Amino acid sequence: SKKPRRERAQRERSVVENLTVGLNVIDRDDKHINETVNINFEDVIAEPDAAQGIEAIWRGVFLIFTGVRFWAYRLLALFLAIPIAFVWAIVFTLITFVYIWVATPFLKVFDILLNIIRRVWTGLVMTVCEPFALAFASVFSGIRIKHQSKPDSEV
Amino acid sequence: SKKPRRERAQRERSVVENLTVGLNVIDRDDKHINETVNINFEDVIAEPDAAQGIEAIWRGVFLIFTGVRFWAYRLLALFLAIPIAFVWAIVFTLITFVYIWVATPFLKVFDILLNIIRRVWTGLVMTVCEPFALAFASVFSGIRIKHQSKPDSEV
Amino acid sequence: SKKPRRERAQRERSVVENLTVGLNVIDRDDKHINETVNINFEDVIAEPDAAQGIEAIWRGVFLIFTGVRFWAYRLLALFLAIPIAFVWAIVFTLITFVYIWVATPFLKVFDILLNIIRRVWTGLVMTVCEPFALAFASVFSGIRIKHQSKPDSEV
Repeated sequence: SKKPRRERAQRERSVVENLTVGLNVIDRDDKHINETVNINFEDVIAEPDAAQGIEAIWRGVFLIFTGVRFWAYRLLALFLAIPIAFVWAIVFTLITFVYIWVATPFLKVFDILLNIIRRVWTGLVMTVCEPFALAFASVFSGIRIKHQSKPDSEV
Repeated sequence: SKKPRRERAQRERSVVENLTVGLNVIDRDDKHINETVNINFEDVIAEPDAAQGIEAIWRGVFLIFTGVRFWAYRLLALFLAIPIAFVWAIVFTLITFVYIWVATPFLKVFDILLNIIRRVWTGLVMTVCEPFALAFASVFSGIRIKHQSKPDSEV
Repeated sequence: SKKPRRERAQRERSVVENLTVGLNVIDRDDKHINETVNINFEDVIAEPDAAQGIEAIWRGVFLIFTGVRFWAYRLLALFLAIPIAFVWAIVFTLITFVYIWVATPFLKVFDILLNIIRRVWTGLVMTVCEPFALAFASVFSGIRIKHQSKPDSEV
């Protein structure tokens, strides 16, 4: 019952495509989280009018730059993208799990304890410091503001 | 009188469902307390237009990332969620009990004691410091603010 | 004249109920003094959309958390609430008694003594310090604030 390799690969591929029907394969950065590295040839290399080389060289530069980038990225992604995605999936799962089941409830406990400490500390600080504020408030009691309208004779 | 395992499991399940009729099993974060870790594939991994790998690899990355997260979280939750929930239930019960029966009455006693201390302390501070404040209040007695309306002749 | 246990228990219960007719047994925190620990399941544990476990486990978590809290608190309150309430009743009685019969009259005496000290101290401080304040009041005599309304012709 050995099936030809090609057929198996094709079947696997269609399974993958079925499972990723909703995935946007054209625009792969919907939320623009990697806009910073969305860099094309014209963002990096440009000859101003005052300094232009031979046209053939300019064409060659364009070809080399875009071609090398295209294939080098594809090669790197081919071998590394899936294992890296696996690692990040594990990392994010662990972080999510710890956040939901440990961090959030702990922070709730922390809030309750802080509430008790806050009441004690507020009481102490108010008792010790407020009397000074009240005592020195009298400093400003000497300010007098008078509203005078000019005497009638001057009008 | 030994009952088959399957039947027992089914009966237990329906009991659990009856006891949790009001529980929202679809939206499990009504109050958005864990919105921080509500992270999907497109929030983490994105290829901008200038750097896109082979489509099959992109599909595979999506499958691996979402699949691993889904099953890894499910597995963790399967084994750890209930014991952790048990521990937090005990912790919150103890904190609640101590808060209600010890902390709140103690804080009330603390308030009463502080009130006595505050009256003595305020009396002392006011007696010692207020005279200085009153004496130096005269510094500001030189400020005069006059409201003048322009004489009619200038209009 | 030995009465059956059950009957006695019933009679005692009705006596307790008669003596606590006005008590609100539904809303036991009228003044919201323990609102901080009014924490429900959804305030502590929540799975965001991106990380949801099996439904049965979620139901189980809810049951365990709410059930354990319910019964653990009931058990603690059953054995500890009445003795703790007794202790606080004694403590508050002593504090109230001391406050009424010792602290308040003492604070009155303290106020009278302070009043005498204050008059002497105020006299001394005013005599020594106020002349300086008056002398330096001229520092602020240069401030002039003028409020002008625009003449009618410009309107």
